[in-house]
Parts: sequence; structure tokens; C-alpha cells
Amino acid sequence: MQHHELQSEDKILFFKKDYISEFVYGGVDGAITTFAVVAGAEGASLGVAVVIILGLANLIADGFSMSVGNYFSTKVSRENFDRHKAREYWEVEHLGTTEKEEVREIYAAKGFKGPLLDQVVEVITSDKDVWVDTMMKEELEMTKDDKTPVKTASVTFISFVLVGSIPLLAYIFSGSGSGIGGSELFLYSSILTGIALTLVGALKSVVTERNMLAGIAETLLLGGLAASLAYFVGDVLEQVFL
Amino acid sequence: MQHHELQSEDKILFFKKDYISEFVYGGVDGAITTFAVVAGAEGASLGVAVVIILGLANLIADGFSMSVGNYFSTKVSRENFDRHKAREYWEVEHLGTTEKEEVREIYAAKGFKGPLLDQVVEVITSDKDVWVDTMMKEELEMTKDDKTPVKTASVTFISFVLVGSIPLLAYIFSGSGSGIGGSELFLYSSILTGIALTLVGALKSVVTERNMLAGIAETLLLGGLAASLAYFVGDVLEQVFL
Repeated sequence: MQHHELQSEDKILFFKKDYISEFVYGGVDGAITTFAVVAGAEGASLGVAVVIILGLANLIADGFSMSVGNYFSTKVSRENFDRHKAREYWEVEHLGTTEKEEVREIYAAKGFKGPLLDQVVEVITSDKDVWVDTMMKEELEMTKDDKTPVKTASVTFISFVLVGSIPLLAYIFSGSGSGIGGSELFLYSSILTGIALTLVGALKSVVTERNMLAGIAETLLLGGLAASLAYFVGDVLEQVFL
Repeated sequence: MQHHELQSEDKILFFKKDYISEFVYGGVDGAITTFAVVAGAEGASLGVAVVIILGLANLIADGFSMSVGNYFSTKVSRENFDRHKAREYWEVEHLGTTEKEEVREIYAAKGFKGPLLDQVVEVITSDKDVWVDTMMKEELEMTKDDKTPVKTASVTFISFVLVGSIPLLAYIFSGSGSGIGGSELFLYSSILTGIALTLVGALKSVVTERNMLAGIAETLLLGGLAASLAYFVGDVLEQVFL
């Protein structure tokens, strides 16, 4: 029953928590970096066309690079676990005496002693899988990442592009030929980005089981600061280079 | 001795492997996203000033947002561990019978039975720390992330900005008033970015203990593809909006 509770806890609706967490980080990153391009271009008064062109170019390239990066880092983390596990199997096979002594130390530290300790070591080391499992958890403190690289990368990409396109919507739909001015579009973009970050921030606090207002405030503050930095850099450099 | 080997394995020179890994991911991301801005601007023929302004704005804003994002995700992962651990302490305190039964199941699965199983369960559950430790590793399969949030964030920021500024160097030092043309600067930028990605890719394979040529090829390919996407998007949108 306890185990049941645990499993349902790791899912939200039908989605695994791990992937919701990828969705949240991909979405936050997409919205913030795209909005930073918008703010930087606005600070340097570069015009609507530049915002759309570099915003979209950045969205696609950054989303691609972040998700492929996630693919590799998940893959490497799983391979790292497998490699260490294979090494432990080798050590159990070839350095049995040392490895047995390590199991003895591990269980002595848990409070076992005397003949009971001997018996425990016997049972653990009589099954190679149990033996290696013990070394992985107790000596190396490693557990296998259960996310798959392809799913992780796909969720990241979709959420990066989906949420990350929101800061550009006002610019894209107005087009460069509309009558709406740049600063008005920037206002709309800020509002839309704020709404997007609020929703993703709320979802984040569901994943992390923390206070929802704190999650939202954190995300909005991060986005606001990053955009302010970009605006400021754009504004200062405009005076230098344009 | 075995433990000694393990510890030295987790450091490279004086740096902890975890932080080198942050350095690698921050650096790869910085170089690739900045180079994507350069390529996108080049594809849309936006000129040297736009490359420098938006490249730097993106570098600062993205580096900030990525490192603060890393700060929170490391913090959340550690808090998540602590919260689950506190919950296990509570369960051990208040649902002792159920939790004891779980320890019995865990050790039965390892091959223990009869009176020996009873004795093992007695020893494990006689010490609350050992009991909770067993539940964390065996039931929840959780181990604590030993990176600290502030160090993780600092390493990410430094490496993002440091490596990420390399694609901009040629543009910055030529200035917008130099005689060197945009496409020539783009060539220099590509070469410098290629060298940076090669070095970081090599460092990555040291961390992941994988083939160095594969690590370099992977990183270069990722950067090249992201930049090509950005160039292509810039080029197509130039015809639409400019």
C-alpha cells in the first residue's frame, strides 16, 4: 500500500513527474531567453523586424541545442551508472575478498556484529546481483536515472519552443508593417510573457511541492531580471555602436 | 584502498568532477547560443553592430538565467531529498509496524529468510538513522545531490560567459567601423567557436570517461547544426520582414 502511494505520488494526472519537471525547465528557459532577445533589441531600438528574426532564430537554435544537450546529459548519466555497475560486477568477480570486506564494513556501520554480521555478509555475497546492488547503493550511492534520453529531449524541445514563442506573439501578429509602435508591442509582449511565466511557475511549484506563490514570484523575478539585464546591455551598446 | 581510488576518481586535478561537468555544460551552451545569435544575424544580414549588441545582451541575460535556473534546480533537488527523508523519519516514528514490514520485504528480496531475516530486521530498525537510510536507498532509491547550489550557479555563469564570449571576439575587436567585412568576421567567429567547442568537447569526454574524438565530434556537430538552423531562419525571415 505504501508502495502504491509512492507510485501515484510520482505522477501528476497521466504524466511522470520527471517529464513535467523537464517541461517546466524547458518552458521557463524558452520564455526567459526569448524575452531577453526581445528586451535587448528593444533597449537598442533595433525595430520589430530584428525582434522577430532574431527571436525566432534564437528560439529554434536554442531549443534545439538545449534539448540535444539534455539528450546527451541524460544518456551520459545512465551510461555512467551502467559503467560503474559493470565495474562492480568485475570487482566482485576478480577482487572478491576485498569486495566482501567492504560489504562487512558497510553492515558493521549499520550496527551488525559477531556471527550475525558473518551470516549477513554470507547471504549478501551469495547472490552477485544483490552484492553489486549493495555496492552501488551503499558504496557509490548511485541510483539509475529513469528518464529516457529521447523523451527528455522531446519534452524539453516542445516546451521550449511552445512557451518560448509567447514573448514573440505580439510582434509576429502585428507584423513589421502594422501601425502599432515598438514600445506598445513590448508592453504586450511583457504582459504575455508574465502570464506564461506565472503559469509555468505555478506548475513548477506542483512538481517541487513548494509554496505556489513563491514558485511564481521566483520565476517572474528571474525573467524580469534577465530581461532588464538584456535591455540595459542593449541600451548602453546602442550608444556605443549605433 | 578501494575507497581511496574512488575518491581520487571523482576529482580531476583539484576540481570536483561535478563542477567540471557544470563548466562543460555551461560553456557548450554559452558558445552554441551566442554563435546561434551571430549566425542568425548573419543569415539576415543584420550587420556587425546588431551582432555585438544582441550577442552580448543574450550572453549576459542567458548566462544569468541559466545559472540562476541551475541554482534553483540544485536547491530543489536537495530540498526534495530532505523532505522525503523527513517524511521517512515521521513514518518510522508513527507507522512503525508498516515500515518494519517494508524492511522485511526489502531484505526478503535480497534472499534473507527465517530467523536470520527476523534478526536483520531487528538490527536495522533498532537505529532510526539506519532504518531511514535503508528506506531512502532501497524503497525510494534516492541519494543526496552533493553539489551546492551557489557553487553550481557560479561555475555555470562563469563558464557560460567566458566560453560564450568567444564567438563575439572577432566582431568586438574589429568594431563596427573597421574595414573587415561581415562575412569575413563570420568566418573568424566560426573558426574561434570551433576551437572553443573542440576544447570543451575534449574536457567533456574527460568527465564522461568516453572516447575523446566522439565527444569533440558530438559538440561540434551540435554547435554547427544549431548555428545552421539559426542562419537558415534568419535568411528566410530576412526575405519576409526586411
